[in-house]
Amino acid sequence: MYQLFIADKNYSSWSLRPWLLLTELGIPFTEQQSRFDGPVNHTKFRHFAPNGKVPCLHHDSDVIWESLAIIEYLAERHPGVWPADSKARTFARCVASEMHAGFSNLRGTCPMSVGIRIKLHQISPALQADLDRISELWQQGLQQFGGPFLAGSAFSAVDAFFAPVAFRVQSYGLPLPAAAQAYVDRLLQLPGMMAWQQAALADPYREPSHEAEPLRHGLLVADLRL
Amino acid sequence: MYQLFIADKNYSSWSLRPWLLLTELGIPFTEQQSRFDGPVNHTKFRHFAPNGKVPCLHHDSDVIWESLAIIEYLAERHPGVWPADSKARTFARCVASEMHAGFSNLRGTCPMSVGIRIKLHQISPALQADLDRISELWQQGLQQFGGPFLAGSAFSAVDAFFAPVAFRVQSYGLPLPAAAQAYVDRLLQLPGMMAWQQAALADPYREPSHEAEPLRHGLLVADLRL
Repeated sequence: MYQLFIADKNYSSWSLRPWLLLTELGIPFTEQQSRFDGPVNHTKFRHFAPNGKVPCLHHDSDVIWESLAIIEYLAERHPGVWPADSKARTFARCVASEMHAGFSNLRGTCPMSVGIRIKLHQISPALQADLDRISELWQQGLQQFGGPFLAGSAFSAVDAFFAPVAFRVQSYGLPLPAAAQAYVDRLLQLPGMMAWQQAALADPYREPSHEAEPLRHGLLVADLRL
Repeated sequence: MYQLFIADKNYSSWSLRPWLLLTELGIPFTEQQSRFDGPVNHTKFRHFAPNGKVPCLHHDSDVIWESLAIIEYLAERHPGVWPADSKARTFARCVASEMHAGFSNLRGTCPMSVGIRIKLHQISPALQADLDRISELWQQGLQQFGGPFLAGSAFSAVDAFFAPVAFRVQSYGLPLPAAAQAYVDRLLQLPGMMAWQQAALADPYREPSHEAEPLRHGLLVADLRL
């Protein structure tokens, strides 16, 4: 049985990715939730994760940390983690890896906070450049592999990697071209995404640094958790 | 035939990784070198790489960008990219991914510049924390899988991921425990590392921003390129 160690569902974009993948693929797992209690928590999380970060997957005697390593570990054991088609799989891995290490402006300006709605003070050129590149990647995948998901007809790991972007677009009202917005809407309507959001909205825990960060970049217009 | 697009051998730590992996595994490829001409070069590199970055691999009709995606693409086609043993492979992927997205203090303070030697003004606590974690990972791999490489007896992708660290340790005289320093020495003595270093030392090209960056953190004590 898989044990997936995650943090708060309102805040932890990294936790969401493998959680959603396991959920959408129907792979049984148990969820072990820890709480953020500040901007970084390396010491606290090191009792289950060697790098002191979430997510971390435990399976039999294996401990797998780092998101992309978790995905590849699952891909060796379950069909559908990556697309079966070689071209689609290659594209999916490139795009997931680009998401993994990039888009720092989107991450910095629009930290994931599932239950709130923010009106940004501005869309900076750097944030717009990130949004443009994301839209470009999505359009390329949807066109080349036929949709409705990024690498073809089935949800796969590359879609899981963009799931936090969907919550960010929703929370910050980020402007996207119609095809990109339609893809965001598809992600938000996945059963796994709705379940994650429901749990986030029902969670009474508030971590001050994670609550403060979005307010540095815009005005709070709604808190759906109240 | 593989075509690997890289940048300057003195500076481009990302380029070094797949170049070294292909070289050490004896996988034939042609090298396509571009020049950095500033701190970022997205527009210039976009004619061969969709994300505007090096490295990028071309193979038949496939274009593979992002280092980890390149590694997985090669792993599907060649033995030895990752260890055959499942535990070693899992460890190797976790560690390579941690290197891929982490150690920002080491990267920021000690940018790769193969041909120079720098005496750092100081080893900051943040830099020391990165060095400690790297030493911890190395020691764990070398002990658990028996060495002399990080995931066993054969050089694999995880060693390629730390190859730029070896050049940084050499250039900046970074202090490491004996076992970690011995591993650095093993990496530096690989034929591929010696060939890369030789090409870097022979390269007359100097990119001003890449030349200036190391001098922000320490004193130049030698330039072996002259």
